[in-house]
Parts: sequence; C-alpha cells; structure tokens
Amino acid sequence: MPSLSARALASQLGEWRPHGTTPLYEALADRVRLLILDGRISLGTRLPAERLLAEHEDLSRTTVAAAYARLRELGFAESLRGSGTVARLPRSFDDGAPALGESAGPGIIDLSKATLTAIPLVAEAAREAADLLPAHLHESGFDPVGLRVLRQAIADRYTARGLPTTADEILITLGAQHAIALITRTLLSRGDRALIEAPSYPHAVEALQHAGARLVTVPVTTDEGWSNEVLEQVMPRTAPALAYLMPDFHNPTGRTMPDEQRQRLQSLAAAHGTVLLVDETMAELGFGRDDQPAPFAIGAEQRGATVVTVGSVGKSIWGGIRLGWVRGDRDLITRLSLARLAGDLGSPVLEQLVLLRLLDSYDRVLAARRADLRTGHSLMIAELEQRFPSWAVPHVDGGLSLWVNLGAPVSSQLALAARAEGLLIGAGPRFGIDGAFERFLRLPFCHPAEHTLRALDLLELAWNRVVQREPLVASDEVLAAVV
Amino acid sequence: MPSLSARALASQLGEWRPHGTTPLYEALADRVRLLILDGRISLGTRLPAERLLAEHEDLSRTTVAAAYARLRELGFAESLRGSGTVARLPRSFDDGAPALGESAGPGIIDLSKATLTAIPLVAEAAREAADLLPAHLHESGFDPVGLRVLRQAIADRYTARGLPTTADEILITLGAQHAIALITRTLLSRGDRALIEAPSYPHAVEALQHAGARLVTVPVTTDEGWSNEVLEQVMPRTAPALAYLMPDFHNPTGRTMPDEQRQRLQSLAAAHGTVLLVDETMAELGFGRDDQPAPFAIGAEQRGATVVTVGSVGKSIWGGIRLGWVRGDRDLITRLSLARLAGDLGSPVLEQLVLLRLLDSYDRVLAARRADLRTGHSLMIAELEQRFPSWAVPHVDGGLSLWVNLGAPVSSQLALAARAEGLLIGAGPRFGIDGAFERFLRLPFCHPAEHTLRALDLLELAWNRVVQREPLVASDEVLAAVV
Repeated sequence: MPSLSARALASQLGEWRPHGTTPLYEALADRVRLLILDGRISLGTRLPAERLLAEHEDLSRTTVAAAYARLRELGFAESLRGSGTVARLPRSFDDGAPALGESAGPGIIDLSKATLTAIPLVAEAAREAADLLPAHLHESGFDPVGLRVLRQAIADRYTARGLPTTADEILITLGAQHAIALITRTLLSRGDRALIEAPSYPHAVEALQHAGARLVTVPVTTDEGWSNEVLEQVMPRTAPALAYLMPDFHNPTGRTMPDEQRQRLQSLAAAHGTVLLVDETMAELGFGRDDQPAPFAIGAEQRGATVVTVGSVGKSIWGGIRLGWVRGDRDLITRLSLARLAGDLGSPVLEQLVLLRLLDSYDRVLAARRADLRTGHSLMIAELEQRFPSWAVPHVDGGLSLWVNLGAPVSSQLALAARAEGLLIGAGPRFGIDGAFERFLRLPFCHPAEHTLRALDLLELAWNRVVQREPLVASDEVLAAVV
Repeated sequence: MPSLSARALASQLGEWRPHGTTPLYEALADRVRLLILDGRISLGTRLPAERLLAEHEDLSRTTVAAAYARLRELGFAESLRGSGTVARLPRSFDDGAPALGESAGPGIIDLSKATLTAIPLVAEAAREAADLLPAHLHESGFDPVGLRVLRQAIADRYTARGLPTTADEILITLGAQHAIALITRTLLSRGDRALIEAPSYPHAVEALQHAGARLVTVPVTTDEGWSNEVLEQVMPRTAPALAYLMPDFHNPTGRTMPDEQRQRLQSLAAAHGTVLLVDETMAELGFGRDDQPAPFAIGAEQRGATVVTVGSVGKSIWGGIRLGWVRGDRDLITRLSLARLAGDLGSPVLEQLVLLRLLDSYDRVLAARRADLRTGHSLMIAELEQRFPSWAVPHVDGGLSLWVNLGAPVSSQLALAARAEGLLIGAGPRFGIDGAFERFLRLPFCHPAEHTLRALDLLELAWNRVVQREPLVASDEVLAAVV
C-alpha cells in the first residue's frame, strides 16, 4: 500500500489556511478532499500519522484528528486495522454519476478539461476505414510499431514542415500520454533527474514520477515565457537525464518558445547529456499568428542534441481517436517498441486506418479548428474581462486554454466552491507540484459557446462565495481528470 | 542507463555450454545474442564487466572478452566511452525487414506467436460500428473507464457464466496486457512479493518486474498441473501481495486448474492477504471437453479472497481488436481508472463499438474458433509424433499451444538453428526466469495448416543441425515478441 509522508502531504497542501470563519479542521479536511478528488492523492494511499502531520503543519494533534474524522464522515478516508487512515471515495460515487469518462454526470458542467467534440469528418473516415479493414484481417493484428503506411504519412508531414523524417523514425502509440509514459519509463532510471516546466501538464508529470524521476522545475510565465537565465543556471547545475517541454502554445500558459531560445536549449541539452522530450500536441493549433511553429527538432542533430518528439490528434481531430506517435531515431524507435510490450501489445488496426484517412484532409481540419479556437478565445476574453475585472487575463495566439491570475491564493477554494455549484474547474495547483499556483486557474476556451457561458455563470456564483468567504456546502462529488 | 549484473546475466544464460565443436566464446556470444533478440536483455542495457562475468561463469577473462568482441562484430554490442559494453542491434535491422509487427519479414515464418487471423465477422462489425459512431462525436471522446453499454455487455456475460457482475465492476482496457500492467503497477509497491507460475506468459512477468516485484514461482507441469503441496508451502512462507495465475488452458502448458484447487487457492489467498490476478484470456477456448471452465472468481467473496479478473478478445476474435477488460470490485475499478491516466487517457470509442457488436455473436464466434483449434491440435500432434519421435508431446483440451519436452536442454540452440532456417520459435527459457526450461519449446497450433506444415519442415532442418551439432550460420535477425 502506498503511503504519503507528512512532508509530502504538507507540500501538496500548500497555502490552505481559511480566510473566513471556517474552522481550521474543516478547512484542512476540505483541502485533503480536493487533493483526493483531483487525483493528487491516489485512492488507497495511507495518510500520514496525525502526530506527524500536526508537527509539520504547526497544528494541534486534535485539529488533525478532527480533520481526519471529518474525512471519514464524508467517506474520503477509512481507518484500516494496523494501517492507519487511508484515502478512499464515498460510496455515493459508485451509485451515482460516472466518476470519470465522457460526461461528468447529470447536472455537472465540466470546464476542467480542454477537450473538443469531434469534427464531422470522423464518421466518414470511420466508414472508409471499415472498408479498408478486410485487407488486414489475415494478419495477426499484433502491431506494436504501427502500420507502415500510417508511419509514412506522419513522417511525410514532418518532412513537409521542414524536418526530413522517414517511416522508421515514427512509432504509433495509444495517444500522446501513452507515448510520454513509454519514453519516460524506457529512458529514465529511478533517481534520475528530470526537468519539467512549472506549470506543466499534470499527467505527464505523473508519468515522470512513476518512472522514479527526481523533478527539477523551470518556470514558464504568461508574461515572460521561459527564462534564458534560469535555463542556463539549472541545466548545468542539475544535468537532467530528460527534460519534458511543451514549446508550442504551452499548456496551460499558452506561451510559445522563440526560435533563439530553442537553439540555446538544444545546445545546453547537448552539453549536459539531456534528452529533450518535446510534446507537440498543440503545435499546429496557432490561431492568432500568420505561421505555425516549426518542429522543435529542426537543427537538433547539427547541435548534437537528442530530441524525441511526441504528437497526437487528440486535441486537433478528437480525443476519441486514441492514437499518437513518437518521432525519434531508429534505434530509439526499436527500443521503445520492445519496451512497450511490458505495458501493452500494440495499436488497434481499424483506429490506425481511421487516422490514415483523416490525415489526408488534415490541413482542412486544422483550418476549421483554428477558426473555432479564435472565436472561443475572443468570447472567453470578453466574458472574463467583464465578469471578473480583478483577474489578470492573458491573451494567447494558440492552444486551447488561458492561465488566469486570480489576484489572490484562492484557486483551490474556488474549485471547491465551483463544485458546490455543479462546475468542475482545473485549480492552479493541479498544474504544479508541491501546492504551487494557488493564484492561478486554467480556463479552456475550446468548448461550444453555450457550454462556456453556462460554466461562467456558475463560476461567478462560486467566485462570489469565495469573495464573501461563505462556508462551502458539500455536493455530489465528481472526480476530475485533467485533459 | 540500465545495467545487468554478472549474477543476473549468469542466471539468464542458464545451461549454455556447447555440445559440439563450437568454441566456448562463440557459444557464449550466441547465447547473449539470443537473449537480446528475445528481448530478455533490453537494448541499451550495460553488460557486466568482463572480469565479473568470467568469475561468475568460471571462464577465463579472455573467453568473455572474445565473446564480447564477437557481439560487437555482429552488431549486438557497442563499447561506449566510460560505460563499458552496451546491448544494441545490428544496423541491418533498420534497413531490412520490420523488426516487430504484423509480419516477421519477407521469407521468415513465425511460430513464436500464438496469434490468430481475424474472423470475417470483424469487417461487418467495423461497418456497423462506423454507423454507430456519429452518436458519440459530440462527446469529448476521453474515456478512461469504457462505454457503459460495453461494460454492461461484458458484465452480462459473466453473469450468464455464473458470476453475477454489474457494469460498475468492469473497466475497459487496451487489451489484457494493458490490464495486467495497470493492475500490477497500481496494487504493488516496489519490493512486494508477487507469485507467478513457472512457466508463465513472459510479458506479464515483465509487467511484474517493472512494478518492482520480487518474484516467487510455483511450478505448473504438463503432467501434474499445479501442486497443492507447493502452494500450501509457498503461500504461507512468502505471503505474496499478488499472484498472477492462468487457471484455464494455462499458457504455455495448456493445463486447467481443478475446482477443488481453485477453492483451496482462494482460501490460502484470503488467509495470507494475497490478491489473485487471474488471466482468463484463454478461458473460453476449450475444444476437447464438454463444458468450459467457470469464472475463477466464483465463490471468492464467500471465502474472503480478492480476485481481479482480466479478459480479452485478442485470442478469440482477433489480436487487431486491442481491447480487454478488468473485473473487480467498484473501488478497485475507480482506483484503476484514475491510476491509468499516468500511462494513457483511455480506450478508443470506435474500437469499443466494434467489440460491442461482436459480443452479440460471441457464442457463434467461439464455436467456430473451437472447431478450428480442435483441427489444429490434431494436426500438430500427428505431425510432431511422426517427425520428432523423441519429443514428449502433451495432448491438451483447450488454448492455443503445446509445451513440448525436447528431451535435452537444447531449446535455445534449437531457436538459433531455426532462425538460421528462417523460422522463429519461442524457446522454453522465454517462459521462465533465470534461464529455466531449456528442455522445453512452445508450439502454437492455432495457425493455418499450410503455415504450420511449412514451419515444421524448417523445424526439422533446425533439429537435425542441433542433433548433429553443426555450427550455426548467422542469418538475417528478427526480433521476437511472444504473444
């Protein structure tokens, strides 16, 4: 059974002291509850002993005991013989709405995910793929590398974007997250240092933690992006084995790394033996600029840097097409396709044929997506500026979401208040480690307008409660995964 | 960079001394080459220092140095500045046939995999699924738990087979191997003991090793199956956190666990806190008996045992449908669906709709499969008895393959000789740990008759070479994954 030290929990808790009249134990229980709902504390994890957490948080043991008792009462913890207190979920999860999945449950509006409904072309591509399938039915279907014709199509797209690529340099995966997890567990040994951006994409961070990496962070801000100064200090000092980066329309800040900085980073990586794992999931979703960012790996070879690129169509075509890919050198592709077998045996054939058909019209698809995102961005900016004049709302030129500064460290409180109104949002700390980013909130602008407007109505109600420091009312709970 | 200790390599090497006139260094290089080709030594792994391996294997350092030099010459190793000798693949892999995937490459016959070509119904189901898809395109597509209607259909099948099950107790995964990897990394902490059968399914064993488990083995033999005596000694002594079992048409031995033994095992698991991870991938593939085995989990709850069941259609419908499932209690299903997000974000929607359609006619599909397997089994038995009279060939009543006893510890040599003839086979040690099962060979009988007969022709040539102790000729190498 995994367990959480008092120090680890304290760092997750961040700034949690209540502003208003809420009792201390209640506020602590609320914060732990959110950490469980957000998946930041895994179900089945043993919580630290009351005495140790009390010491770490400078509380009385009675306060911690009362908070744990409250969690047990709400169904978020359970005392196990000889194992202390363990995180769990209330029974109501099992009987009510689906905890995770397509819909957040009846009456719940989900603004925690930056996901898109499918383009209509998907249905046509599925029919065409079904017609292509019989040619493959005499094969074993076991396909850990990917259909050659699909690998070729993806390679051709990189070549057309200025990065010459062959089919042997492409591995088809079960989405970008699958690629990230496979690469990290193959390239990292336990205890290796890995560099991540702060904030960053939470599930990628989880994959690095699973691989046993010691994380080193570099900040990305909505104003400044990445800091050359910091990179030039951190890279030599820590010589990370791997760095996970989103240089295009970074999730969640929306920033894009300038060309000179990419080159500098490649040189630093080459000098310090760092593999650059570059997530280009968003790379072709620029809507407020004339050109799209070029593939990061351009020029890497000349500089002696190793770049492994991850791509996917989950944010451009549809999340229901669960395919992505890795671009890397041939040796790495072979190594990854072998290592993969410990986790899964390959990609579905029909799904690959669907993607193959969709890539034929990919430029058209992207143009339509960009137009939708441009509209969604304008709407979200206008609404936020009007409804929440105290927030700092950045404008971005690509991607799916905004990283909003609330002006006060109340993001988790806002997320709890929003839940009470039936709205799920991605609180800032979900995108950092150690409870950072309590002043921030990620707001996706990729949803249909009526969905966004309804969500903002509820967000206003929640914000008013937080501002007026009203005690929160428990509601039906829904687990939040961040996408 | 992962590294291999001299002790670990020695245990993988098993009995490798040459029978004939092959020089010692050559035989050692050959054996290491096979371990790399089989995936038992991962690419990029540092081999032990020459001096240490020489000590462990009681060889002169010159012999080990010569073997490493030979590996470098063949392209299976590379000296890296400051990192010693590292396992790799020859360049020819990159330029020639695909190393892994649907076809083993031109001119290569693959008898290492127990895979089936698809039933023709798959094409029809794909077309029907494409027609159902538009109803899902307005959703996010992000689906880590699985479509409720599919979970219900799978639950109903368990209920019909005598094990009442609800949709909430089912999680849809990306095949059985994905389910096994997810369960092991979620339930096991590093250093936990895990029990496996010997022999067992290699990729499941890899998943346990990845989770950091210390493995404990219990033998399964073609004659006796599982031994009650051993189970009753090993379970109390080691109290494993988890046991991975294939009680139905066990891969590779083909044995099925009797009912009394299942009950006894449940009681032992309840007494010692062991979660039973039961792989029922083969459970409905009995062709030589009147009834099919009932789900293992029946009666577990009354005995206080925790059983987590894994199923899939990869061995009954087609390996190209990359979906499987977990059956477990609701809390575990929620926990797994959250833990999954560190590795991938869910199952493809279209693929799930295909499976949903196929489950409608699943009884018909299974009847046809069983008839094919019955024919394949008879053919393989008759051919083996005629061509290899010295081998001990067991008859089985279900599953896809035979576990043949060669009568001498020459399975790896036979695999190398077969490669030289253009035939891939699954040498016995691939199914064990520490180089065991050198007397055994797994032969699948699920391939079309002409494929089987061509393979057996080549196997005869290879066997004659081994018997006559001819030196082996290097050939185009192909990586073998075992399915």
